[in-house]
Amino acid sequence: MNVLIVLAHPERASFNGGLADVAADALQAQGHQVEVDDLYRQGFDPVERASFYTRREDETHFATLTEQRAHYDDNALPRDVQHELNRLDWADLVIFQFPLWWHAQPAILKGWFDRVLVYGGRYSGSMRYDHGYFRGKRAVLSVTTGSPRQAFQPLGRAGNMVEWLWPMHASLYYVGFDVLAPQVSYGIQGGGIRYQDASAFHDQLERQKDHWRARVPGLYQEASIPFTGWDDWDADGMLADHNPLRWRP
Amino acid sequence: MNVLIVLAHPERASFNGGLADVAADALQAQGHQVEVDDLYRQGFDPVERASFYTRREDETHFATLTEQRAHYDDNALPRDVQHELNRLDWADLVIFQFPLWWHAQPAILKGWFDRVLVYGGRYSGSMRYDHGYFRGKRAVLSVTTGSPRQAFQPLGRAGNMVEWLWPMHASLYYVGFDVLAPQVSYGIQGGGIRYQDASAFHDQLERQKDHWRARVPGLYQEASIPFTGWDDWDADGMLADHNPLRWRP
Repeated sequence: MNVLIVLAHPERASFNGGLADVAADALQAQGHQVEVDDLYRQGFDPVERASFYTRREDETHFATLTEQRAHYDDNALPRDVQHELNRLDWADLVIFQFPLWWHAQPAILKGWFDRVLVYGGRYSGSMRYDHGYFRGKRAVLSVTTGSPRQAFQPLGRAGNMVEWLWPMHASLYYVGFDVLAPQVSYGIQGGGIRYQDASAFHDQLERQKDHWRARVPGLYQEASIPFTGWDDWDADGMLADHNPLRWRP
Repeated sequence: MNVLIVLAHPERASFNGGLADVAADALQAQGHQVEVDDLYRQGFDPVERASFYTRREDETHFATLTEQRAHYDDNALPRDVQHELNRLDWADLVIFQFPLWWHAQPAILKGWFDRVLVYGGRYSGSMRYDHGYFRGKRAVLSVTTGSPRQAFQPLGRAGNMVEWLWPMHASLYYVGFDVLAPQVSYGIQGGGIRYQDASAFHDQLERQKDHWRARVPGLYQEASIPFTGWDDWDADGMLADHNPLRWRP
């Protein structure tokens, strides 16, 4: 199995970096191929804009999807985007490792979605959801939070973790991935960068690493999150009549 | 009233840019002060990282919240962050104008949250939610989508719009804003940048601009979205027993 670990944290010695290492080590010990895609180390630029596109389809106005599709068709995508696409084509499993900042992924990873998952090449009106480009590949989010676990329960103050991750989960399914249940490591205060200090906090962090280390080898055979698909929708894109969830006015 | 319009679109002549102009014109006609905060034009850098912090609290490891708090305390925040904070302090109402990209705000606006809403200065363990720094100020999201309205209904293929905007709405409430119902302009294909062409599409876009133009003057007196607050939670941060929504195992 080929595994790509997309890491989005400004400090490589953080707990997030440690979780990336835990996954890489566990997978390599099983004989899998692993590549760590450290967006910060590469200086990945997440701000989609006109200057990335050398041969403009529309030189007067910049329309993101127009230029993505045209440059994909001409095999003239920005070099860093093409590099990421090559890695995704190589991978059977993609692990996204990041801290939850403002209820979502850090900007550098948000822009990875904006720039890398190009219109035309990786999705279109007919190539999405369960007809998506990446179908057959797996993706999983490994997330850290500052607040403790109980705050993220469905009626907790920090909000339901399922809801915070839903935009990313839905985006990965949109391009065809089988999305696995997320790995959430709660209560990683200060980015966990002093986790080498002997303390109760150290023990807590080591336990969370142990949980991840124990889960990783089975990722390739876990059941994925169920989503609705083309067979479920009517011509208006609503859940069809035969579906028991169908809303009736 | 002082109004800040935070605009996040790579093309100023886009429909998003047009909606920013519609709001600015309507508010200025009422005698309000308006500033358009065009993140792309300013070249706002959304990637929070060590190099922004000149006097490191921890020179060995970069922990985001540690450096944000220390540099806020020392009045030594990055110049662009301080500029954004000054604008927020000035504003009574903040309008966020952006296209929905991958079920969320574009990376440049995601990083505005990551970098500008600094720990220590704009939130802390005791200064958040209905005790938040910005309480008394209003915020509203004005969003455009490529897909049509029906796809974003609760059981539609494109997903429930309320869920896509929840991470941003919750983040704005977290720092104390009164959050108004979003303005969603659906079906803006190709960024609407050719909306000047005479066509049915042009008429549709003009109607959506008219809706926004008609709503904007009343934003300062609209009821805001209700959220739970400190009085609703128990010591564990869960909805307290007296709350009828309280989950019982």
